[in-house]
Formats: sequence, C-alpha cells, structure tokens
Amino acid sequence: MKIEAVDFHYLSMPEVTKAADGSQDALVVQVSAGGLTGWGECEASPLASIAAFVAPMSHGACQPVSASVLGRRVDSPDDIRAIAADVAYNSMDLLQSAHTWSGVEMALWDLLGKARGVPAWQLLGQAKAFPKLPYASVLFGATAQETLERARGIRAAGFRAAKFGWAPFGASLQGDIDQLDAAREGLGPDGVLLIDAGQAFGEDVEAAAARLDAMARNRVTWFEEPFSADALEAYAALARRSGPVAVAGGEAAFNRAMARHLIDYGGVRYIQIDCGRIGGLGPACDVAAHAVARGVTYVNHTFTSNLALSASLQPFAGLEGHRICEYPTELKPLARDLTVNRILPDAEGLIHLPDAPGLGVEVSAAALQTYRVPVEIRVKGQTIFAS
Amino acid sequence: MKIEAVDFHYLSMPEVTKAADGSQDALVVQVSAGGLTGWGECEASPLASIAAFVAPMSHGACQPVSASVLGRRVDSPDDIRAIAADVAYNSMDLLQSAHTWSGVEMALWDLLGKARGVPAWQLLGQAKAFPKLPYASVLFGATAQETLERARGIRAAGFRAAKFGWAPFGASLQGDIDQLDAAREGLGPDGVLLIDAGQAFGEDVEAAAARLDAMARNRVTWFEEPFSADALEAYAALARRSGPVAVAGGEAAFNRAMARHLIDYGGVRYIQIDCGRIGGLGPACDVAAHAVARGVTYVNHTFTSNLALSASLQPFAGLEGHRICEYPTELKPLARDLTVNRILPDAEGLIHLPDAPGLGVEVSAAALQTYRVPVEIRVKGQTIFAS
Repeated sequence: MKIEAVDFHYLSMPEVTKAADGSQDALVVQVSAGGLTGWGECEASPLASIAAFVAPMSHGACQPVSASVLGRRVDSPDDIRAIAADVAYNSMDLLQSAHTWSGVEMALWDLLGKARGVPAWQLLGQAKAFPKLPYASVLFGATAQETLERARGIRAAGFRAAKFGWAPFGASLQGDIDQLDAAREGLGPDGVLLIDAGQAFGEDVEAAAARLDAMARNRVTWFEEPFSADALEAYAALARRSGPVAVAGGEAAFNRAMARHLIDYGGVRYIQIDCGRIGGLGPACDVAAHAVARGVTYVNHTFTSNLALSASLQPFAGLEGHRICEYPTELKPLARDLTVNRILPDAEGLIHLPDAPGLGVEVSAAALQTYRVPVEIRVKGQTIFAS
Repeated sequence: MKIEAVDFHYLSMPEVTKAADGSQDALVVQVSAGGLTGWGECEASPLASIAAFVAPMSHGACQPVSASVLGRRVDSPDDIRAIAADVAYNSMDLLQSAHTWSGVEMALWDLLGKARGVPAWQLLGQAKAFPKLPYASVLFGATAQETLERARGIRAAGFRAAKFGWAPFGASLQGDIDQLDAAREGLGPDGVLLIDAGQAFGEDVEAAAARLDAMARNRVTWFEEPFSADALEAYAALARRSGPVAVAGGEAAFNRAMARHLIDYGGVRYIQIDCGRIGGLGPACDVAAHAVARGVTYVNHTFTSNLALSASLQPFAGLEGHRICEYPTELKPLARDLTVNRILPDAEGLIHLPDAPGLGVEVSAAALQTYRVPVEIRVKGQTIFAS
C-alpha cells in the first residue's frame, strides 16, 4: 500500500480551560492507503503539530514530517519502522515532529492491521492480549472534601484503582496531606491509590520527599511525575528514599531513549508511555521490552479518547503481569463522542482490547464534524494547509 | 518595561536545499517594550515555532508561549528567568515551545541590556569578555579532494581551526578516512581539526569507533555528534574508548537538563550549546557553569547569522580558558545580510564580543524585507497570525 494522503482533524470543545484536562481538544490523523483508512491521534498541540507536517523545509535535517511519509509504501511492520527512522533523522531539528509523527505512526498500524485482518498487538509480535485492570484517572478536587466525594464515586462505580492528579497538589504540605487522606478514605481500604503530582516540584527533591510519609501511611502505590520530565537526577534521588512508594513517570517521553533514561538513570518503577507522544506503537513496544528486562512495570498514559486508549494498550497487551492501565473516566464530550465503539469494563471490572483489526476502534464521522476547528495556513500566498 | 509585542520575521532564501546548512532560512524575533526593541533568533523551523507562539490553548499544561510572555514586566535578569520558568511549566506539553522561547528569551536580554546600557554578558554576571578563537565551520566537500581544497582555503584565510561536518561523512569507512586525511593535509600540521558526524551513526557505537584510529592519526580534537542527540549510552561507550579524541555534542539540547546529561551520563568533553534552541542565554549560562564544575569545555553552536552568533557567545564570554568558538564562514546571503554590523576576526585571528548594549548587533531592516516569507494562520475564521 502506498500512503496517498494524511489528513488532520483538529477538534475542540467550544471552551478550553486551564484545567490539566487533555480531552478538551484533539488532533485526529487519517491516513489513506490502498483503499483503506487508518486512524491515529496526537497527544499534542493541534496547530503546532499540523505545522510540523506541512512546514517548508529549513534544511536537510529540518524537514517537515510529510517529507518522510507521503508516497511511502507500508506493507509490513518493518516499513513503519523504516519511515520512523527517516522522520527521526530528516526532522531532527524540528522539535514538534515527534508529536506529529506519533499520530501518523499509530494510524499506520491501524491501516496495516486492517489490511491483514489482525489486531495491532498481533502485528507487534504478541501472542495474546491479556485483560487489564483499569484505574479511574481523574483530577484532584479543589478541596479535600471534593476529592473524598470523587473517590467515593469511583468506588461506587466499581473501580478497584484510582489516580488523582495535578493542582492543587503541591501547593501546600498540609493541603496535600489532607488530599491524600481524603483520597484513601473515599476509595476504601482495599483500593489501589495512585498520585500524580503533575511536575509540581520542578527539581526540588526535598519538597517532594516531604509528602512521602503521608503517601506511605495511605498506601499510595506510585508517586507520579513529581519533577520536570528531564530531571533525571531528582527522580533518582527521590527513588532512593521513597521506600514502599514507587516513583513513576514517562508521559512526556517523545522517544524511546527518554523513557529508557527515566528507568536506568531516574530509577522509576513504573514507566508511563503515551503512544500519542513517544512516536507511536513501535517505540512504545521497545520501551515495554526494556521495562521487562529491568523489572519495571509498563503502564499506558492516556487522558484522551478511546482511540488513543486502544493505541496505548497495544504495546503491552501481551504482558500479563503488567496489569494496571490508565483509564480516563471524566472525558469531555468531544473525546467521548470521537469513537463509535467504547472500551468498557466487564462485570469483573477488567477491560479488554478490541478484537477487530488494527486498533479496533471506529471513528465517528459526526464527531469529526461537530467539534471541527477550521484551520488555514498560507505561506507565500499559497495555502499549504486547509481543513 | 512591559512586553507590549512579540513579532516574528520568517526569512528564507528563494531556494532551500537538503544540505545541512541552517542558514537557508531564519526566524527572527522582535520584542517591543518600554519604547525599546530587542532582537533574537530561533534556530528552528520558522512555521512550527510561530505556531507554538500563537496556537490556541489545549489545556493548562499545553498553553502557547504567548500566554506566559505577553504583558509581562522585564526589569531584571530575574524577571527573564521567571518568565522562562512559566513557559516551561505552562507549555510542558507543547514540544516546539522551547525553540520558540529561545528566540524570545534572547531578545529579552538584548532589550534589558539596551535599557541598562550594558552588554548582555555583563547582565549574566560576567566581569569581562575574553576574545575567542574562531573555528571556521563548514560542511565536508562531496569528495576528499573538495575537502582538501576547502581546508586550504580556510588556512589561507587565516583561520587556525576548522570544523568539517555532515554528509558524506559516515557513508563509508574508507571514504571517511580519505576525508579525514584530506582535511588534515589542507589545514596543515598545526591547525586545530574538528569533525562533526551529524548523528550519522544513530546508536551504533562500533561504526563510530571504527573511525577513531584515523581521527587520532590526524589529531582530531573532537568527534562531534556521532549519535542521535538522546543516545547517552552510546556517547558514554564511545567516550570510554576514544583516547585522545574527545567526544562532543549538545547542539540539540533544548533545556539545561539535556546538556547536563550529555556531560554527566554521556561523557562528552566539549558541550556545544545553541542559544537559539536551549531556551536562550539563561540556561546556556547554567550549562557553562556545570561544564566548569565538571572540567568540560563549553562551546557555542552557531550555524546561522551574526545575531545568533553574538547571542551564543554571551554565556561563556567570561570563561577565559573556554577559548574556541564556532564561527560559520559560508553563510547564505540571508544570514550574512541580516545584521548591519559583523563580528570579524582581528589581525591575530581572534574575535571579540560586541561592546554595544544588549547583544550589540544591529538588525538590517532591508534584509527583513528582502528575504521575508509572508505567513498567515487562520483558526475558526479568525487570523491569529499574519506577517
């Protein structure tokens, strides 16, 4: 199959707020080849990611993503990896290219799976897809009381695990302790409790470490993204003293090396990969293999649609012991409506990857229309992108 | 001073080729505040970098650069650092933001220097600006014979050091050996010879190491960017066996942590920083301090205009022992014409930082007009950027 077209659908809620809620807009990628359509999603700024696909070339090492993609043949997993290598080299000086390519790469696996009639996880070399234990992934309430109620709701909905994240966590030590106590109380004594600091502590190891006692007392399984994504030294310092609380991170990794370094230099015990950022399913799969080799647990990072969720589950579908998975439960209508079919917990509270070919998720044409953001980019008087 | 406006000037040569020549286009940043104008330059894809400034917000951690910049006060170096921290946090999920911010940050030092009547290097806390020994930075010839002639020309022009880089280096071992011999022969026995592999070896340590004997025999001072920017393990492996040839890298670093890791985990002995990528002068200065602490030599990376050159020299102006500096000698007319004044070697072949306030370089209004690339970006029917 020859890649004939790559179309970008920029979608948005009518209003976008400063909440750390990544489901307020979306960049959906549609790849057409051989009469088939593959779908992917960039977890990224839509406009900047579109620009990285269509930008005029600056020089040989700063080419747009399109230069390495359009017209290429995709008949095997190796073809996808070959294009990935070309994007990495030809666009090495175009920073945004990794985010753009992530959605395209995802769509290529969807496409190849459809062509062969097999799910993407099989193309990735996995013999079986094991069910996953979804953790409800939500933001902290503005107050501990709100978090308490949110946790009770999650428990009542049948989830056995939950993650609370971002502001106001990090604002004050006592406030954080109250939040941690409230989350544990609401979730009940047997729920898996996860905490996401949203990089609140920068590189300040002492500030992060001050929360460890309250985390240990509340049996927090992991302390996610305490620091800036690249603060490997701070990660390592916290990991050395975090005792029963594992340090987690990785959602910002936009190539396999960044994830590897968080494991090998940063000492994280859970590596969290977003296929919409790391370059798609191929590098995510490599990170999963590295995690296995190091005794680290691989987890998806997903805070957007079920298309992104399916993609992010594929690379570790075959890892039975890596059982927990992120499952966003408070999606904005845009992200909820984007897929016709949904990935829902079964009676035992477990989720299963779709059986259908590729990513096994059908994109809603109506949603693409309803939430559409028209964009036009003109350079030297020529329209180089119009949606 | 309050930041009233940030204007982007996208410039380009009429024709842009795949040569690894970063001077074929440019993104010049003009910041207006308190009746003064500061100038900076992003070493980046112009269109993608503009998009990262004007893009609609995706969520609280994926805001455009403009959200943290416009309307802010800049009355001291601390103000610049405070804005930098806000950009890093508010735009953490907008990958391109680091490149966009680099040009803006540079312009803020230019602005503040003009307001106080002192050069930027003084604002950065340095007591004196020492002269630097420029190395002529050029691409390899297509053949060893061409490289020989290019090296002779550089020697005849009075340069005491030269760097040859990029393709065809890496294509074949014998070809590379011939290129190395030719470069040394043309430069003469006493010239400082530097080699830039332009990431040709990916993560392949053995392929890079196969070039070490010919480099040692030709007394190559450094072997630059043998690997992908993030391949810290490969850097470390090569550094352990490179003997008299130092491993160098860092031009891709877009924050201080990446540069620190190349030193501490990758074992480079020269750290090469482009202020148009790393977030401007502030983080570059921090990297210079880290290099001093580790016994590593700091060097600028510059392959574009004299505006970028002046900016990239400021952070290590006061480091007398860090003497060598990159000096592009085959600039495209665009990059040559961009500044009214030029930084030229003196009778002894040394270059001096401008004495004038800020970056001390005057931008040519004529060049901004001559090489201008008109751009218009429309979202939801509204023009959000027009040049």
